Amino acid sequence: MKKIAVLNGPNLNRLGKREPEIYGSKTLDDIADELRSAFPDVSFDFFQSNHEGALVDKFSELADSDCQGVVFNPAAYSHTSVALRDAISGAGLPVVEVHISNIHTREVFRHHSFTAEVSRGVITGLGTDGYLLATRSLLGKA
Amino acid sequence: MKKIAVLNGPNLNRLGKREPEIYGSKTLDDIADELRSAFPDVSFDFFQSNHEGALVDKFSELADSDCQGVVFNPAAYSHTSVALRDAISGAGLPVVEVHISNIHTREVFRHHSFTAEVSRGVITGLGTDGYLLATRSLLGKA
Amino acid sequence: MKKIAVLNGPNLNRLGKREPEIYGSKTLDDIADELRSAFPDVSFDFFQSNHEGALVDKFSELADSDCQGVVFNPAAYSHTSVALRDAISGAGLPVVEVHISNIHTREVFRHHSFTAEVSRGVITGLGTDGYLLATRSLLGKA
Amino acid sequence: MKKIAVLNGPNLNRLGKREPEIYGSKTLDDIADELRSAFPDVSFDFFQSNHEGALVDKFSELADSDCQGVVFNPAAYSHTSVALRDAISGAGLPVVEVHISNIHTREVFRHHSFTAEVSRGVITGLGTDGYLLATRSLLGKA
Amino acid sequence: MKKIAVLNGPNLNRLGKREPEIYGSKTLDDIADELRSAFPDVSFDFFQSNHEGALVDKFSELADSDCQGVVFNPAAYSHTSVALRDAISGAGLPVVEVHISNIHTREVFRHHSFTAEVSRGVITGLGTDGYLLATRSLLGKA
Amino acid sequence: MKKIAVLNGPNLNRLGKREPEIYGSKTLDDIADELRSAFPDVSFDFFQSNHEGALVDKFSELADSDCQGVVFNPAAYSHTSVALRDAISGAGLPVVEVHISNIHTREVFRHHSFTAEVSRGVITGLGTDGYLLATRSLLGKA
Amino acid sequence: MKKIAVLNGPNLNRLGKREPEIYGSKTLDDIADELRSAFPDVSFDFFQSNHEGALVDKFSELADSDCQGVVFNPAAYSHTSVALRDAISGAGLPVVEVHISNIHTREVFRHHSFTAEVSRGVITGLGTDGYLLATRSLLGKA
Amino acid sequence: MKKIAVLNGPNLNRLGKREPEIYGSKTLDDIADELRSAFPDVSFDFFQSNHEGALVDKFSELADSDCQGVVFNPAAYSHTSVALRDAISGAGLPVVEVHISNIHTREVFRHHSFTAEVSRGVITGLGTDGYLLATRSLLGKA
Amino acid sequence: MKKIAVLNGPNLNRLGKREPEIYGSKTLDDIADELRSAFPDVSFDFFQSNHEGALVDKFSELADSDCQGVVFNPAAYSHTSVALRDAISGAGLPVVEVHISNIHTREVFRHHSFTAEVSRGVITGLGTDGYLLATRSLLGKA
Amino acid sequence: MKKIAVLNGPNLNRLGKREPEIYGSKTLDDIADELRSAFPDVSFDFFQSNHEGALVDKFSELADSDCQGVVFNPAAYSHTSVALRDAISGAGLPVVEVHISNIHTREVFRHHSFTAEVSRGVITGLGTDGYLLATRSLLGKA
Amino acid sequence: MKKIAVLNGPNLNRLGKREPEIYGSKTLDDIADELRSAFPDVSFDFFQSNHEGALVDKFSELADSDCQGVVFNPAAYSHTSVALRDAISGAGLPVVEVHISNIHTREVFRHHSFTAEVSRGVITGLGTDGYLLATRSLLGKA
Amino acid sequence: MKKIAVLNGPNLNRLGKREPEIYGSKTLDDIADELRSAFPDVSFDFFQSNHEGALVDKFSELADSDCQGVVFNPAAYSHTSVALRDAISGAGLPVVEVHISNIHTREVFRHHSFTAEVSRGVITGLGTDGYLLATRSLLGKA
Repeated sequence: MKKIAVLNGPNLNRLGKREPEIYGSKTLDDIADELRSAFPDVSFDFFQSNHEGALVDKFSELADSDCQGVVFNPAAYSHTSVALRDAISGAGLPVVEVHISNIHTREVFRHHSFTAEVSRGVITGLGTDGYLLATRSLLGKA
Repeated sequence: MKKIAVLNGPNLNRLGKREPEIYGSKTLDDIADELRSAFPDVSFDFFQSNHEGALVDKFSELADSDCQGVVFNPAAYSHTSVALRDAISGAGLPVVEVHISNIHTREVFRHHSFTAEVSRGVITGLGTDGYLLATRSLLGKA
Repeated sequence: MKKIAVLNGPNLNRLGKREPEIYGSKTLDDIADELRSAFPDVSFDFFQSNHEGALVDKFSELADSDCQGVVFNPAAYSHTSVALRDAISGAGLPVVEVHISNIHTREVFRHHSFTAEVSRGVITGLGTDGYLLATRSLLGKA
Repeated sequence: MKKIAVLNGPNLNRLGKREPEIYGSKTLDDIADELRSAFPDVSFDFFQSNHEGALVDKFSELADSDCQGVVFNPAAYSHTSVALRDAISGAGLPVVEVHISNIHTREVFRHHSFTAEVSRGVITGLGTDGYLLATRSLLGKA
Repeated sequence: MKKIAVLNGPNLNRLGKREPEIYGSKTLDDIADELRSAFPDVSFDFFQSNHEGALVDKFSELADSDCQGVVFNPAAYSHTSVALRDAISGAGLPVVEVHISNIHTREVFRHHSFTAEVSRGVITGLGTDGYLLATRSLLGKA
Repeated sequence: MKKIAVLNGPNLNRLGKREPEIYGSKTLDDIADELRSAFPDVSFDFFQSNHEGALVDKFSELADSDCQGVVFNPAAYSHTSVALRDAISGAGLPVVEVHISNIHTREVFRHHSFTAEVSRGVITGLGTDGYLLATRSLLGKA
Repeated sequence: MKKIAVLNGPNLNRLGKREPEIYGSKTLDDIADELRSAFPDVSFDFFQSNHEGALVDKFSELADSDCQGVVFNPAAYSHTSVALRDAISGAGLPVVEVHISNIHTREVFRHHSFTAEVSRGVITGLGTDGYLLATRSLLGKA
Repeated sequence: MKKIAVLNGPNLNRLGKREPEIYGSKTLDDIADELRSAFPDVSFDFFQSNHEGALVDKFSELADSDCQGVVFNPAAYSHTSVALRDAISGAGLPVVEVHISNIHTREVFRHHSFTAEVSRGVITGLGTDGYLLATRSLLGKA
Repeated sequence: MKKIAVLNGPNLNRLGKREPEIYGSKTLDDIADELRSAFPDVSFDFFQSNHEGALVDKFSELADSDCQGVVFNPAAYSHTSVALRDAISGAGLPVVEVHISNIHTREVFRHHSFTAEVSRGVITGLGTDGYLLATRSLLGKA
Repeated sequence: MKKIAVLNGPNLNRLGKREPEIYGSKTLDDIADELRSAFPDVSFDFFQSNHEGALVDKFSELADSDCQGVVFNPAAYSHTSVALRDAISGAGLPVVEVHISNIHTREVFRHHSFTAEVSRGVITGLGTDGYLLATRSLLGKA
Repeated sequence: MKKIAVLNGPNLNRLGKREPEIYGSKTLDDIADELRSAFPDVSFDFFQSNHEGALVDKFSELADSDCQGVVFNPAAYSHTSVALRDAISGAGLPVVEVHISNIHTREVFRHHSFTAEVSRGVITGLGTDGYLLATRSLLGKA
Repeated sequence: MKKIAVLNGPNLNRLGKREPEIYGSKTLDDIADELRSAFPDVSFDFFQSNHEGALVDKFSELADSDCQGVVFNPAAYSHTSVALRDAISGAGLPVVEVHISNIHTREVFRHHSFTAEVSRGVITGLGTDGYLLATRSLLGKA
């Protein structure tokens, strides 16, 4: 059975409640349900933290596991975390970065992503569909 | 029957021949075949040009048509064309920008995209799968 | 009989349709009519293209003609085209650059104009009246 | 009877005397005469000051008057005065900024204008005709 | 009874001990005492953490509470944390940012504050009085 | 009897009239009344000018007086005036800078303040309450 | 028989007529004559266009031909065209870039060349001799 | 009898009182006395103002007089005033700029001088001797 | 007995496993062993965390201990953490910063170190020997 | 007999030994031999130094000689030496700058050349052929 | 007898010959004669070198001598030499920097001077009189 | 017997005399004595020069010798010398750069080092111990 990790960064615990005009009304639980029903033969490892260090720890743990790929929404840490950048490049796993909103249309400081520079690819602006599409890409089911 | 336009910018006529270590070995025709077989009930309008003006013309033509969305790989023009940016925002159609390679890992001048700023979203680095995933997103079939 | 060329750049074929809250509802044909009725003794040469190269070609053609001045709305190419800048300075004709909206109040990348640096002057933000005022200036009828 | 204010900023009291190869040989009085004879049914309020604060005061006074528009040549203060920018946006009057020479062809520090960002439009490089054309625009007589 | 949260960021647990020539000699407990005695009818929720994620968690918790405002000294995280910026704008609570020293007179990297951009206001340089003044402002008791 | 000077810079004579959605509807007279009634035992010296030089003159005058502190809203001159910066540092009086709106959330050119670099502290974004809070701070009545 | 392509970019159709004090009085035909007589055993493919896209098309065509090298004067497109940069690196042919005037002594925006970064070398400032010297280099006849 | 104008900008009315560790203890009157006794056959025109506009007015007045040169300490206005730059270049008089302290050793924003760019020369850091040396230079008595 | 703290930042728990071509094959345990055997009379306090806040906590704890110096490899946090910078300057202990690889030869964002600005010194590029050399320096045993 | 000086800057004494994958295997002596045999009727003055000052001295010496042109490879000093820039413009001789490798494809700090700005032209990236081609250009034998 | 050193940097050996329209026609010998006759009771130590290192050597030598001050024209090395900056601050002698032309009106790279930052003052643009005026200042004979 | 070169750049001949509060009171001879007594079985080659070119010469000489490593304090030339950078990378020897003071805490222009980018590592801020530690690293005796 294939294993995919789905990691979410800061403030995404409030997804669906926080600023729905930007981020929509689905919660992380809704997204998890969608992923499980779309890919019933995949074992998902869901993890959310507001702590940069906890996300680094998680990548460290995944590097030693049999996980086959990571769907990662680093949220604000995309733009500020060199530590997560190093964690990704050190883990040796394929990572697809997802942003729910289109970061190119927002504030200038959201245009640069440290983590995207070491990820396989990025999906931005396609709402919560980004999680499904990223999983497809990691599974070779585009 | 739904209509989706698939537009490709400069040098993509040489896809599959030019620098396969970066762009892979599939040609634009291969991608067209994949799209037609994946979405048999969609009418695709394929268009490639090395001319910025021809791509602007095409957006102008699409704006007056019944096209429901555009998958657009602007290639080098992402980074230099304000004219295409204006063409997209003037056409009033949902556009998903696709880049085959991950532009965030390449030269600095490829990190900024004028066209992404007015597109619905961007998929970068997921190879030619990006075209399929973008089409899924436009059709609501993530 | 005096000859004035009126050149329009990319996306202006859609003037009056595209984003009327920014650009108003007059079309290029409406502007041509206004110019002809305001200056009945002038022979106008109207030209619009979405192609940077076609506009360069046009300046090359005008340089060898008896045209007495150019009203030029380079639209997006103002901000990106060194080729049009060179075409203007090579043509040796007085050029008045026109922008319908006030480029100083829009995105930062619209604040710089390569073509303005080699034009006689610039009129920006005064709507389609800019074409009439520019023509007045070229004819010495301010 | 319509009222138009014509405001001139620093050093323009010396227009016609200072550097005529850049600014021409007409004085402010000559321009006033041209405006009065071109628009005999308009009441003009001419004002020149070398003091930034006096120009701010003037905008404050005009905001409470029945003036219908302002032709404003802020000269050097275009490039340095946030106070005049605020005065214009606080006055709530249509302002057309005029520069006699083409600021785009001069020193880099003259390319940015704080005041243009809150004006309706800008006319630059068309000599003292700029005052006439700006007045036409404010009166709807392009 | 009104509830006000008072949040303090990294290294403020050492306030009163660390570099008193910059930050003064009062501790966080001293400040808490001052607030309680100045506003006896307010219920204060004091919280300090050196962890960015813990502060994000706290804002998430406050967003679901009946807290009426936040006095926030983000310390170093003002200058680096997009996550806290997002946490503030997602919480939907009025926040007044406080800095004990005047950040405008210190190193250049302290001049920019991500968190100030989404706060109601900022008080800087007025020592530990900033906490009292910020509370006054949130309570409408200036 | 303690003396406090309250200085206001350009365009603040129009406070309450100009752009109330940003600056609110109180006038400078309203603020003066609030200050006098809140601190009846303080002698206030109110001064407003749109002239940078007049404000510099005022600081020069205060430096030789028995004034105990200055509440200063430099408005637009915060961002452009090195002369006022020098005037403050030359006067040797404690100055608290006040901005009615939160300058951190406005245009980038309003994020830097020359005058804040030599003031004791800054209160920004707390509306006209900023004047009261600044006075409290100068009087040691936080 | 060896084949060398000689490509010329925008406005070079006017060489010899446009600004002779910068570019000299020889035309492209004169240069072609010089090349043919200097290298009688070489088959030259001369091509000029004002269209960026047409030059990209040409590189695409040359990539599939038996051409042994390209002498390329991209003129203004050196400074703005990522598409031509990609076309050169995709064509896999040795390219020597030529500029008639010394681009280092002209405007700052002419100091950077996208195309030079993927060319074998650059000759600038040596007038129309640059074409002859570039051809020598490609033929190994320095 | 030769005439030399000696102009002083903002805050120099407080010279000798303000920050003597930077500017020394001589007043403007002391400097005037030194100049008169060192050059008894010169008619000096001394002028100080904190108003940028008043200094512009003064240059305008001098331009029409028989003054033979200007010793100018623009103080803070060196760094911000394009208006004074224009006033100097419009006056057509030789100007020697003087700064009492060495502006190269102070804050970065004091390193650039708009006015120096149009003056004959600059003397900085040599204390109040700068006025004497500048006068010598204007009189050809080095 | 002398006490030295050896602190390691994010991702260094994976040292020896992660990217050995950059960081070598020794683990943190190997380094601890080397330090203990090289300096048998020193009591070492080893600490590693991926959490910025935990490292700030640790400095806070050390500030109140009898530790005589800190060998600190902040890894990615060197480049992004103002909080750790403040923690170091607040702790009042001598700190020698160590980087295993030469940060000057890597990505530009690794060239600047916030923490180095408040440390006694830095050793970079000398592999895991850096820990031994830093300890020597703190002990005065160079 | 014509005289041409061939000047080489720092580290070129090691040409052919140092990093042959960048600079090739020919030595300066090999280049001298090639030049002498290609142009037997020219008197060459070969000079190499690692000292910026010695190269300035050499230009000073050549300025007073009957030398007809200089082939100059300033190597690293291109990018850092204003003194050599001044020496070239002071010598009044035609200079052709040569770089063996293509400086446009190397580190960013090699893209700018102080010396190129005052030379007649530049040949870069064409290997040691650059010396021959530069000599041809100076002799009018392209 | 007082001793003053007069140091001149690169290319000044050619003063009077090189570009007289910028630097005038006096030679260094002429300047030496002027200084000796103007200050007959001063022992001058004249030194010129095109070598940065030789100028550093000279400052090192002067630091150990009884020289009372240095008149220094660093020419191009002002803008590039940190070594001379360090030599000046290490020598502990008063230095007055002289530039014959006004560096503020020339290329941007001449606007910054490393050496001026550690000199007592600077005289620029006053021709060769600068040497006399600088000597006056060092001798207290303004 | 192993050979280590110890190279010192500009102004270090004055070490121990120049600014002891920054650089300490040891001279280069003291450091040489320390090195010889700490490593009696190493043959040291000590060299100091204020001349950039002489240091380049020295690297050229070392490249052809049996030297096993270089301890290099480039002082000011770290920040300005591309020639020394090229000399180091051309010499093919391991180089450890040493700075006595912590360059990260000094002026911004000292934060960048051209030479560090091609050295094995850097030791900064550890005083003259840096020479001993660098030698240890080169000898594998950390």
